[in-house]
Amino acid sequence: MPKMTVEDLEQFLDAHFPDMAQRAVSVERVGENFARVRLRYHDRHLRPGGTIAGPSLMMLADMAMYMALLAMIGPVALAVTTNLNINFLRKPAQADVIGECKLLKLGKRLAVGEVTMYSEGDTEPVAHATVTYSIPAGR
Amino acid sequence: MPKMTVEDLEQFLDAHFPDMAQRAVSVERVGENFARVRLRYHDRHLRPGGTIAGPSLMMLADMAMYMALLAMIGPVALAVTTNLNINFLRKPAQADVIGECKLLKLGKRLAVGEVTMYSEGDTEPVAHATVTYSIPAGR
Amino acid sequence: MPKMTVEDLEQFLDAHFPDMAQRAVSVERVGENFARVRLRYHDRHLRPGGTIAGPSLMMLADMAMYMALLAMIGPVALAVTTNLNINFLRKPAQADVIGECKLLKLGKRLAVGEVTMYSEGDTEPVAHATVTYSIPAGR
Amino acid sequence: MPKMTVEDLEQFLDAHFPDMAQRAVSVERVGENFARVRLRYHDRHLRPGGTIAGPSLMMLADMAMYMALLAMIGPVALAVTTNLNINFLRKPAQADVIGECKLLKLGKRLAVGEVTMYSEGDTEPVAHATVTYSIPAGR
Repeated sequence: MPKMTVEDLEQFLDAHFPDMAQRAVSVERVGENFARVRLRYHDRHLRPGGTIAGPSLMMLADMAMYMALLAMIGPVALAVTTNLNINFLRKPAQADVIGECKLLKLGKRLAVGEVTMYSEGDTEPVAHATVTYSIPAGR
Repeated sequence: MPKMTVEDLEQFLDAHFPDMAQRAVSVERVGENFARVRLRYHDRHLRPGGTIAGPSLMMLADMAMYMALLAMIGPVALAVTTNLNINFLRKPAQADVIGECKLLKLGKRLAVGEVTMYSEGDTEPVAHATVTYSIPAGR
Repeated sequence: MPKMTVEDLEQFLDAHFPDMAQRAVSVERVGENFARVRLRYHDRHLRPGGTIAGPSLMMLADMAMYMALLAMIGPVALAVTTNLNINFLRKPAQADVIGECKLLKLGKRLAVGEVTMYSEGDTEPVAHATVTYSIPAGR
Repeated sequence: MPKMTVEDLEQFLDAHFPDMAQRAVSVERVGENFARVRLRYHDRHLRPGGTIAGPSLMMLADMAMYMALLAMIGPVALAVTTNLNINFLRKPAQADVIGECKLLKLGKRLAVGEVTMYSEGDTEPVAHATVTYSIPAGR
């Protein structure tokens, strides 16, 4: 069962990532080993060609995993990414991007999740990532 | 032989990524299949614990590869990342981070590079990435 | 719609990978952007600790993606892997391992899929991979 | 300083991986955070097109990392791969493949290395991998 709600996670982000909140990431839904996060469309995320830049999608993937993990283990700010692998699949639309993370493993020391990213309203993914977090001992 | 100099690349970034330039990334050196890029230390890149956030390092890795590639093939703005894999190795110092990219393959359709990232003044890497770019046909 | 059936793919493997067939990989099911492949449990795949070795799971992931791709595009033997990323999640049981591949992208030049691997009878995945294939031009 | 020599590692492989030894992998050199491993050319590793198959290169990458790690920490058979990411860069020659691993991080719980693979006699890499191992506690 998740230990944190969408509201808990939003408060956590406001407290720990004040800049990040301005970057237009919000938590939409959490569940058992799951989180859905939204990257709001904004000029600032664009790259040549008018599409959302890769680094914004990488940030979204990392954040979706972080939210899925914290929802399950509670507000462990110092959990850190150890590996992120992302495949960029299609040019995103000029729209918000939704990232859905499913935890594949939630161990004591390592958690692994996969994140599928969609332009809002589309069914084909724009990117897919797998992300590993290290969980600090003795929490 | 590189087709673009550090100055050419800086002008390219100013023209195509006006926001990115503000994000404190600069090109330091280019050579045969090589580029060195600097991420200037700034509060904006921090995460809980006071360290530089993963997404900033991913942006640096992507940018180092992009610069190494463009230096060799010229200003092809629409070359796009297809895969990025990053391992976070150590907590970065409160300092600039230097990313050095070496191209492992420069084909007609795909280029692959590896990027090693160091806190300025340290010898142990803080992160290591491999990055694949797709090069548009008919350029 | 798939262009090759399970029987077509098994004949293709027998013709092109005679050794591989002996290695106890078989195709179980194919569908739209999907393939399921089985690695039969055998002493030869073991590593210290009695578990199935990582390289056998990597071979299974690669083969599941190859079968999902060929099912869709036909018998293009020279399609080649360009990137494979695998996370090992749990110690496999002493049982067959099932690999299920779902294609995330099927482009003209590149195809990307994800492969989830389970010990037969278990619901938790033992490994998860993403795999990219390059498709030769002019086929 | 390495704790195991080439001879120590070869004996370890003979004892723990009797089949692997037959697969024509041998240890050539070890040093500080470094190992060089050889995959002997053999029909058994081939795929359609006459080139060495991807799974053989993945096995080589994994083995090079395992040897570099064990050389430094001693014969910990139960150290296990948690992540492997490989880029296939060029078609290998009909020759032995040499894998050189450099450890990027050697922590208490995780070790990360990069492996560059060459066909013997060539200078351009045929493949490049990054590999993460989890080191069991309490050894």
